[in-house]
Order: sequence, then C-alpha cells, then structure tokens
Amino acid sequence: MGEIPTEQWAQVIEQTGGPVDYKKIPVQKPGPDEVLVNIKFSGVCHTDLHAVNGDWPLATKLPLVGGHEGAGIVVAKGDLVTDVEIGDHAGVKWLNGSCLACEFCQSSDEPLCPKPLLSGYTVDGTFQQYCIAKAAHVARIPKHCDLAAIAPILCAGITVYKGLKESGARPGQFVAIVGAGGGLGSLACQYAKAMGLRAIAIDTGDEKRKMCTEQLGAETFVDFATSKNLVADVQKATPDGLGPHAVILVAVNEKPFQQAAEYVRPRGTVICIGLPAGAYLKAPVFESVVKMIRIQGSYVGNRLDSAEAIEFYARGLIKAPFKVVGLSELQMVYDKMRKGDIAGRFVLDTSK
Amino acid sequence: MGEIPTEQWAQVIEQTGGPVDYKKIPVQKPGPDEVLVNIKFSGVCHTDLHAVNGDWPLATKLPLVGGHEGAGIVVAKGDLVTDVEIGDHAGVKWLNGSCLACEFCQSSDEPLCPKPLLSGYTVDGTFQQYCIAKAAHVARIPKHCDLAAIAPILCAGITVYKGLKESGARPGQFVAIVGAGGGLGSLACQYAKAMGLRAIAIDTGDEKRKMCTEQLGAETFVDFATSKNLVADVQKATPDGLGPHAVILVAVNEKPFQQAAEYVRPRGTVICIGLPAGAYLKAPVFESVVKMIRIQGSYVGNRLDSAEAIEFYARGLIKAPFKVVGLSELQMVYDKMRKGDIAGRFVLDTSK
Amino acid sequence: MGEIPTEQWAQVIEQTGGPVDYKKIPVQKPGPDEVLVNIKFSGVCHTDLHAVNGDWPLATKLPLVGGHEGAGIVVAKGDLVTDVEIGDHAGVKWLNGSCLACEFCQSSDEPLCPKPLLSGYTVDGTFQQYCIAKAAHVARIPKHCDLAAIAPILCAGITVYKGLKESGARPGQFVAIVGAGGGLGSLACQYAKAMGLRAIAIDTGDEKRKMCTEQLGAETFVDFATSKNLVADVQKATPDGLGPHAVILVAVNEKPFQQAAEYVRPRGTVICIGLPAGAYLKAPVFESVVKMIRIQGSYVGNRLDSAEAIEFYARGLIKAPFKVVGLSELQMVYDKMRKGDIAGRFVLDTSK
Amino acid sequence: MGEIPTEQWAQVIEQTGGPVDYKKIPVQKPGPDEVLVNIKFSGVCHTDLHAVNGDWPLATKLPLVGGHEGAGIVVAKGDLVTDVEIGDHAGVKWLNGSCLACEFCQSSDEPLCPKPLLSGYTVDGTFQQYCIAKAAHVARIPKHCDLAAIAPILCAGITVYKGLKESGARPGQFVAIVGAGGGLGSLACQYAKAMGLRAIAIDTGDEKRKMCTEQLGAETFVDFATSKNLVADVQKATPDGLGPHAVILVAVNEKPFQQAAEYVRPRGTVICIGLPAGAYLKAPVFESVVKMIRIQGSYVGNRLDSAEAIEFYARGLIKAPFKVVGLSELQMVYDKMRKGDIAGRFVLDTSK
Repeated sequence: MGEIPTEQWAQVIEQTGGPVDYKKIPVQKPGPDEVLVNIKFSGVCHTDLHAVNGDWPLATKLPLVGGHEGAGIVVAKGDLVTDVEIGDHAGVKWLNGSCLACEFCQSSDEPLCPKPLLSGYTVDGTFQQYCIAKAAHVARIPKHCDLAAIAPILCAGITVYKGLKESGARPGQFVAIVGAGGGLGSLACQYAKAMGLRAIAIDTGDEKRKMCTEQLGAETFVDFATSKNLVADVQKATPDGLGPHAVILVAVNEKPFQQAAEYVRPRGTVICIGLPAGAYLKAPVFESVVKMIRIQGSYVGNRLDSAEAIEFYARGLIKAPFKVVGLSELQMVYDKMRKGDIAGRFVLDTSK
Repeated sequence: MGEIPTEQWAQVIEQTGGPVDYKKIPVQKPGPDEVLVNIKFSGVCHTDLHAVNGDWPLATKLPLVGGHEGAGIVVAKGDLVTDVEIGDHAGVKWLNGSCLACEFCQSSDEPLCPKPLLSGYTVDGTFQQYCIAKAAHVARIPKHCDLAAIAPILCAGITVYKGLKESGARPGQFVAIVGAGGGLGSLACQYAKAMGLRAIAIDTGDEKRKMCTEQLGAETFVDFATSKNLVADVQKATPDGLGPHAVILVAVNEKPFQQAAEYVRPRGTVICIGLPAGAYLKAPVFESVVKMIRIQGSYVGNRLDSAEAIEFYARGLIKAPFKVVGLSELQMVYDKMRKGDIAGRFVLDTSK
Repeated sequence: MGEIPTEQWAQVIEQTGGPVDYKKIPVQKPGPDEVLVNIKFSGVCHTDLHAVNGDWPLATKLPLVGGHEGAGIVVAKGDLVTDVEIGDHAGVKWLNGSCLACEFCQSSDEPLCPKPLLSGYTVDGTFQQYCIAKAAHVARIPKHCDLAAIAPILCAGITVYKGLKESGARPGQFVAIVGAGGGLGSLACQYAKAMGLRAIAIDTGDEKRKMCTEQLGAETFVDFATSKNLVADVQKATPDGLGPHAVILVAVNEKPFQQAAEYVRPRGTVICIGLPAGAYLKAPVFESVVKMIRIQGSYVGNRLDSAEAIEFYARGLIKAPFKVVGLSELQMVYDKMRKGDIAGRFVLDTSK
Repeated sequence: MGEIPTEQWAQVIEQTGGPVDYKKIPVQKPGPDEVLVNIKFSGVCHTDLHAVNGDWPLATKLPLVGGHEGAGIVVAKGDLVTDVEIGDHAGVKWLNGSCLACEFCQSSDEPLCPKPLLSGYTVDGTFQQYCIAKAAHVARIPKHCDLAAIAPILCAGITVYKGLKESGARPGQFVAIVGAGGGLGSLACQYAKAMGLRAIAIDTGDEKRKMCTEQLGAETFVDFATSKNLVADVQKATPDGLGPHAVILVAVNEKPFQQAAEYVRPRGTVICIGLPAGAYLKAPVFESVVKMIRIQGSYVGNRLDSAEAIEFYARGLIKAPFKVVGLSELQMVYDKMRKGDIAGRFVLDTSK
C-alpha cells in the first residue's frame, strides 16, 4: 500500500460562505469501527455548495472539508472492522455513519437515523486525500470499476435508484421522469430501463429528446415547453391513456408537482427527490382521494440500495458523463455552479 | 318471502336542489346479474346531501332516488346470479356496481373503476323499499346482525376501515385519528383498537375525551383547542416521542393536514379521507423528503374490505350510535344536516 | 365479420382415454356475459393430454372439446358485455371463467375460485372453430400480434410470468430456472431478462447451454448432468456465492426440489410450477427454518398477470418456437406427446 | 450501581455432554461496542440442553457458559456505545451480536448473518452473573417490567411473535396454532389475540382446551386426539369453511405439517418454528400448486421484532407462567428436561 503520510492536500472551508482554501492538513487515524480511505476521485454535488453557503436549516461543522462522492482505496482500519480489508476499493457517501441501533437503523432505514454523520457536512468529507468513514457504511466498489467514473453514482445514482424502488413500479410498468435530461434525470432513465421499467422522459429541447430516447433508454419523450396539454400528452404516452404508474420528480417545484398528481395513474405514486428551499408539495384533495394516489418523499439510499445501485453500474448498464479536474480547482467548479454553468458532473482528481 | 309488490314508497329528487318528494313509484326488476333488495333500513350520509345540492363536479341521475347505506333482504335475482340467494340479508353500498373487467377491477380496486354505478347518485339508491344492485357488489350481512344498526357501517365503517388498512400501520403501532370524536372518527377509533392498533384521538372537549378514551378504545386524547403545541403533544403521546406511525384525517382541511405531516413519524403515512370542496393537500418538500413520509388519499373500500369491515362489526367489536326515523321524514333529516344540527347517524325505516 | 355458421369443425373426445374425433358440431351462442371467439390457432399443452387420459383427480366434461391456448377474433357477444367488441382479437385461456364474487375472485386470485370454468376440461375449449368464453376472462390481444405465435403465451407464457412475479425477486437479483431449456423454461429465461432479473439456467447439454445463454438471455448455465456439485455450482453463479434469490421449478420432481432448497439464498423463495402426479415437496426443517426460506406453489396467472405477460410478448421481448399443423392432425400431436417426441410447441390451425 | 466484582458465580460446561459445574469465574470487561449486563434472571430453554448435549450440527464454544434468556442491568459499556446507559434494564438474547454489515444485517435480517455470535453457544451466555453482549443487540427492557417474568419473552415470546408477523396474517384473519397448549404455543395464542388475529388452538385434553379458550384468547379449540377428521374440523372453525389464513407450527413433525398444508386456506401460509432433528417438511405438489400455498421457516426475531414483542408484553397483554429456582440448581432443571418433566418455564435467579 505504501506508507500513509501524516499530511495531505485538502480543500477547507474556514467559515460559512467560503471561499475554499486548498492547503495541507493532517491525516486522521480511524477509530475502532472506522476505515481510512485514500480518496482518488470525488464528485462535486449541489449539496456541497449548500454546505459552503450555509443556506440549509442544518448547520455544518467548521472548519469543514466538503465532499460526499468519494471513491478510493482503504489504507487503514480500526480493530473492530472485520469485513473491509486494506486494499479494498471503497466509496464514501453522504451518509458517513449512523448509530446502527435506533428504530430506523434497525429497519434498514439508516438515512432516517436521528444521529447521522454526514460526509462533508457534519464530518469532514471527500475533498481531501485521506478520508475517515464508518466501516459499516462505506460502499464496496468492485475492482474492475473506474474510480473516477463511479464517483457520481455514489450520490446521484443511488438517490435515483432509491426513488425508483420506493415508487413500487414493477417491471413492464410506466414511470415518468420529470427533468429526464438533467444529471439526476439521465441516471434515472437508465436505471428505469435496467429495472425493466418503461420511462416517459419529460424535459425540453430536441437535444434532450434525442439523448433520452436514443441513449438513455426512454420509450417516449414529452417536451413540457412545447406541449399544449402536458397532462394529456403524458397520459397519451401510455397505451391505455391512463397515465404512468409512477412519477419521479428529480427537481421538485410546485407546478410540475401538481401536474404529476394529475397525470399519474389512479393508485399511482409520485416520488419527490430533491430539496428546493421553501417549496411545498400541493395536490387537490378530491382527485387525490378518489384516485387514491400516493405522494412520497425519497431521500438517499440505505446501504443495501447503495450496493444494488453500484451493482447495476458495475454491470455496465449505467453511464454518467463527467469531467475530471484537479482537487485544487474546486473553487472554479463552485463558481461555475453558482452561475448555473455546468453540464454533466465535475469529478475532482485528488492527486492534482 | 311474500309477494313482491309492483309499487313502493320512495323519496325522489325531481331536480337538483331538491326538495325530496315522498311518493309511490314502480318496483324495478333485476337484470341477469342483479338482485332486488327489499331495503329495511338506510343510513343518511352527507354525500346524499351533496347529491341533492348538486355541488360536486359529477352530475347525478335525475329524477333520483338517493341513499347508499341500505340494509335489507334479497327478494329477487337475475339468471346469472349463483352466489346470492333469495332471503339472504344484503347491503347496498355507494359502489352499486363496477365493470369487473378493467385494470382496476382486475386489481381488486373496484372503487377506481372508470365506469362505476354509484347508488343514490348515478343509479337509484336506498331511499326506497326495493332497490336494484349488482349481485357481485352487494354486501353479505350475517343474519344475526340488526339491519338498522349495521346501516352506517356500510359506508362510514367500511371507509375508515379501508383508510386504516391503507395506512400500513401494523398491530402495536400508533395511529392518530384527527376528528376522533365525530361520526367517522369514532368508528375509526374502534376499528383501530380491533386491529391491534393504538389510537391517539385528536379532537376537542371533555365529553369527547371521555368518549374516546373510555368507550372507543383510544389510548390517549389530545385536545387541539387547548394544546399549546399540537405537534409536540401528539408526538409525546408515543413513548419514544417520534410520533404516530400513521395519521387518519377524516375531515381534511389544510391546517390539520400540514400538522399531520409534521408530527407523523419518519417513514410514516398520512391518510386523507373525506372530500371537502376545493381543499388542497400541502406539505413542505424538505421535511417530507428527509423524513420520507407518505401522503395518500383513501376512497371507499373494495368488496373484500367491505366484507372484512362488516365481519369486525358482526363480532360485536364496533358500535355506531344511530337514531331511527321513518323514510317519510328524510326532508327533516336534510334540514337538520344543512343546519349542522346532527349528532350521530340518522337511519331511515322504509316501512314508515 | 361475415356470417357465423351454424356448424363447425371440432376435435371431440367422446370418452375418457380418447381417441379424438374430428367432426362437425353445432356452433353455440354466447350467454349474456359471454363472447363467441372464432379461434384461428390453438396451442396444444400437456394438460390437454391429461384431459384425454383422465389421469388427474378432477373429472372432465364428456363429450369434451379440449384446448386452452386459443387465439382468435370475437364474432358475437352477450347483452351485458360492454368492454369487448366484435372484431377484437382475443385469447381463450385455461381459466375460461370464474364467479367474480368469491373471496378469491375479490382478491384478484381468480385461479383459486372454487367454481372455475376450465377450458377444454370442464367446458368446451379451443380445439374447435368457435369457442364460448366469459367476457371478463378473455385475454385482450393487440391486433399487431400474430395469432399463431401468441397461442403458447396464453398458457405457458402467463404461467411462468406468474411464477416469476410470485417469487418476489426484484430487478438485479438472481433467479435459477430449473429446466431452462424446455418449453416453460425457455419462456421463463426470457421473461426473467425482460423483468430485469438475472437468470441462472439449469439444464443439460451444450445445445441448451448455447440456446440459454446466447438466445434466451440467461447469464450463466449450470449443467446438472456434468456438475459434480450442483448446489455449489449454482451458488458460485452468484458473485457473493450465497445463491439465487429465487428458484423457479418448471417441472417439479423430488430431487431438484430438495437441491433448490439447499442452494437458494437465505430468505429466498422456491416456486413450484408444474403438476407431476403424486409428487411431494420435501425440504429439511432445520435448514429451512434457520435460512427462513419460502416454498410456494404457483398456478396459472390471474387476468392482470395475463395482460402483463401478453404485453411483454407484444413488445417483442419474448419468442416461443412453435410448429403449425392442422386442427385435423391433433391425434398425431397426442401420439407424439405420448412418446415424448416433441421439441417446441405444436399450434393447430383451425382452418385445416 | 455498586462496584463490579472481579469474580462471579456461573454454570460452566467443561465438555460436551456435561455436567454443568457451578463455580466462580472472572468477570469480563466489555469491548468498545459491548455492554456488561448484570444478569438478574435467566430462562432455561431446550436449546440450552442441545448445547450441553452437542447434538446439533453446529459446535459450541468450550468451556461454555450457557443461557440466552437473560434479563438484568447494564453495569459497564465500551467507548463506542452511545445509546445504552449504565443502569438501563437490558435483555441478552440468543443473537448476542451480528456483523451489522453483511447483506442480511443490512436487510434487517440479523438472524441470518453468517457470522452471528450466539449466547450460550458460540459465546458465553446468561447462566452467570455478569454477561457480555454487543450493545447493538441487547434488548431494551422498560423499568416497570419484572425481570424474572420477562426472561421467557426474550426467546420464546420473540420467536412466536416473529412467526406470526412472517405469516402475513392480517387483523381479523384466522391463524391455527399447532401445539397451542405448550410453552411456545400458549405465547402464540396470546400474541395472536393482541395482534387482532383469531386463533384456532390445536392441542389435546380438556385442561388445555379450557386454558386456550378461557385464558389465552383462542376463539376455538380443536382436539387432535379426539377429532375424527382434523382437516375438516379445523376448516369448520372458520365461518366460511375455507380454513385458516395461516398456520403456526411450533413443534414441527411430519404428520401435523402435512395436515397443515391440507387445511390451510388457499393462498395461505404455513410457518414452521422449532428445530426437531432430522425432520422434513413435506407437502403434495398438486394441492400446493393449485392452492398456491406458501410454506416458510421462521427463525428468531430481529432487533425490531424483539422490541415489538417486548412492547406487547410490557403493555400487559402477554403472560408467561414460570417458576424461579437458583442458578445453582441448573443441573436439576436439565435433569427434569431430559425426563420431559417440565410444565412452564424455569427461570434462574443468579443471586442463589
């Protein structure tokens, strides 16, 4: 493995609002139930920018090393760790650790643990070369997988896979994906296809239409900007005209949400992913009751969801476009994000 | 059985807005897949008043015989009917018939059939002495059950039982019932107890507190009018302070609904029953997602739910207070309803 | 549509044991809830031979027209039928009709109805040109589907699809198919793939190995004849060595069954399809309990399963090899069946 | 808490076959993720005798302190333990610990963990005054519960509760309990009632009949010794004659098992609990398939099941008869067990 250094490069936020400071900090030692992962690549997610900005209700640790989509190699582990070996490839996710003992952890709902450790938020994350994580929570990465390419799967991929699972849609059924051409949406289309579901991609523009139907496996595409009657058009995309069995909203805002409640099939499910500040779910009571529709929030995946989502990726069924830049260039990535000037995922190479 | 007369007494609405006209009309003959039920007693429900007023989006048949909580005796049947016998006790429910062939009927979701026959709304109902119903949909009533007392079960009882089933709450778990002291709520408390659930009754006033906890089987009572922090008080009613696993809203309006989304346990379910005109479900996206809560509408029960709800009643586990008046007095009942001047259910005796 | 004739060609069994008699018989008229289907093609299934031989516990109608995989065109319908039109393409299945009112029909388990009408067994079936079926139970066939090719789907296809659904295996999980190279097995492999499942084909011979992995979509093949340790080899076919999540046994006999209980993953399911006379399920109590495995019988599909299985076929995801001969040649098909001399399905053309 | 001594009384098996040796041994110190429980009372279970006899396929630790139904007080804990406090009342169960990281632990199926620590079997158990257990796995015992009385719930109670949950029976449905008058069976009857299920007790003798129907809450009793047709009699105990929705076999041997497969309702479930050496599950294929019945093994409960089973007990809904003797008298208990001379549970007081 080579020696573990005592110092490493990291991107550190000293105070809320930023900026990030690229500098050397000490390498930590893992506790008895922890591992130390030599992060090779880390994706950058919008949540990281929320951590810098401090605009979510939950306060971050300070100073903070951000990042929660880190892929690397286990280089050290605590005495209690028996199921992860030095040299294993591992992923550090948003849920760095949980108590494993509360009602929710006992129910395989670790993301609902009231005492979670959140990578790059309440504990230091993956924008450093050596990151600590609870052994029980690190993702196992097969050795044939490219560590840069898999980084975005560790958050975005798992999240949309979880949403699709929670929807209850069965193979052969239809699922509408609202925002199908975006980062989460394009993963959702691919997972849907791999799960035997038939995706109706909802987004706008001919480029996205082409991408969704020719590359991502969606059966049909509905352009919300040019459609004269979105509800009718989505329902028409199912052979019997009754609408999709499930809807995945990857970026919830009020209008798409209300439309989803209208076009979803009776007994269908609307899954909300994504956390726009201050937004509300809203649906008419009468239609919701007589159609018996279900509206549900879906957060990140648990450990099992994570393993399954990675397995689909490892089988070659999921592609996520990304661009590699050096860890030292993180501020540039944030600047682009603030301007909304990002297509595809940025992945940081921690060696640069 | 005695002879079936050619004429009978009925309450007829000639035009939307009423009034009801108590008069003699012909007795119909059942079609090949239908039965003729000699209605002995029929409950009066708020939906009947909506049918008179014509204030729902769906138009009624005209002239119309209202009523959809009718209990009586089968006196004739069509050639195709093999599983109902002359002399059987039977109930005529809101869902008088459905196609039995569409995707929803095939999925045991007959209430979602796009071509339903609705008693006292799109077909003549139970405010007459002899009522037609599709044999496949009449409720089987055990002969030891009082036909007057069971009438309110045929709509209100089945509806709350269905809501409790849909909530997914398991024996030993907590369910909050909002409006526990009302007509639907008091049935919900009793069904909850019979199903091994632990009810948290939410309503107001000492009389209702006493009734809910001493007669209806609720474990605790939270008075929404005197509570200084309803969310905290409901959560405190569960030993671990995490809140109820499910919430049953029997009369949805916006404030209770939003509170329900707040106090329900993570991964919990909020079930909406009841159809207030123009109301909206509304819940904050952030909390809904990170708590992964589920919000679902629940309509009336299917045939199996109905049989199960009746079985609980037949075992003596459910009591519904009611007052018997003659069929001829229906207008008086409507007048009281309009004034909001009703406690308990009115049940009409068709012989008077 | 042309005129409906009064007479038609049919294959009739006058007495148990056979032979079948190819002759003219009258065309029946549909009852109020029935349709008359002009059968164009009908598959021949082993069950038909059981009906001839009378070697099952249940007695057949006599004289009997066999057959329960019939595809054709609706040419007449009863007065109560509103959801099937003259000219629709329709399939007549094993379950010709059910009461639609018992607990099982109410639960979408029509195949468990205690008063079923069974095509070609308790009512006349599809080895005739014009066959009666209950409208609620005929399968809807899209008009672009070839009526000869779809015939075997109407029994074999639906049955294996149902078994896969009942197994509870989720997309991405492994399912072992025992007898993968046979008629039912080869359909099971294809349905598994279409449902996002990963099939482990168990059968013998290089020809079947090639067919299963190259044409039918199985991920791996285990040859039960050459394997030195079948249990170990099946478990090795899953990356973690814990074995498949489900096992589909299309031809149950005792040895494969006991092996299935051994190699299935803890918490896994063993689904038994197929009805060998006098056979027993058998599994060791200790291992079954500590592994918490589930063993379940699966019969034919309900109406919804049927529609779904047909939809997969209609999308071009399922191929079933078949050979067309004339209806008049049925005795020859039975003779071959008796000798075990059949590869693929025989489909009868009723015009010859 | 008082001081933790360095030495304590324990019952130790030096070699397979016994006897147990009552003597002083050192008190252990908990590891970082462990607690030390001052055991006050411990139930004695047949499994403990299997551990002494060494007649199960799995080898025990040697020398061994047996016991896995221990109730006591937490007196020390490791550094990583944050959710258990010194002074908490806690139970040590059969599953002393599991990896919390494998697929099964991740799925809330800790009892299926391939690396379990088993109290009184692969690690020292509760027949000592101070016992080590993994903090994540100790049962939380409310302080108002009697520690002697709750001991039998920690194994027998949880196990039957789990079996009832696994059966899938819903409130209002029927469950047959085979061996209803025995130790496990009498708990099963009570849990069934508390869960809203209707129990059909199957056992023999008037004393057990009286106990089952008058004290344990069973609705009916079928005497297998005097019944002329057990299958018919069990089915008659359900109003529609179709048989119970589930069957719980607390002591599986072949005859009751095959009968269960016969009298269970179509689509019903037969749950096997109990581990008789060398026994086989056996059911006819034909009936199992056409009735679509499910046969499933059920092992001990997971952590959540355990908490729920204890909660039912803590609410006063479950009574388990027991007799307290001193820890020093364990050999006498084993001697009685070997002779089959035990009625009710023996609970050891570790202070004597």
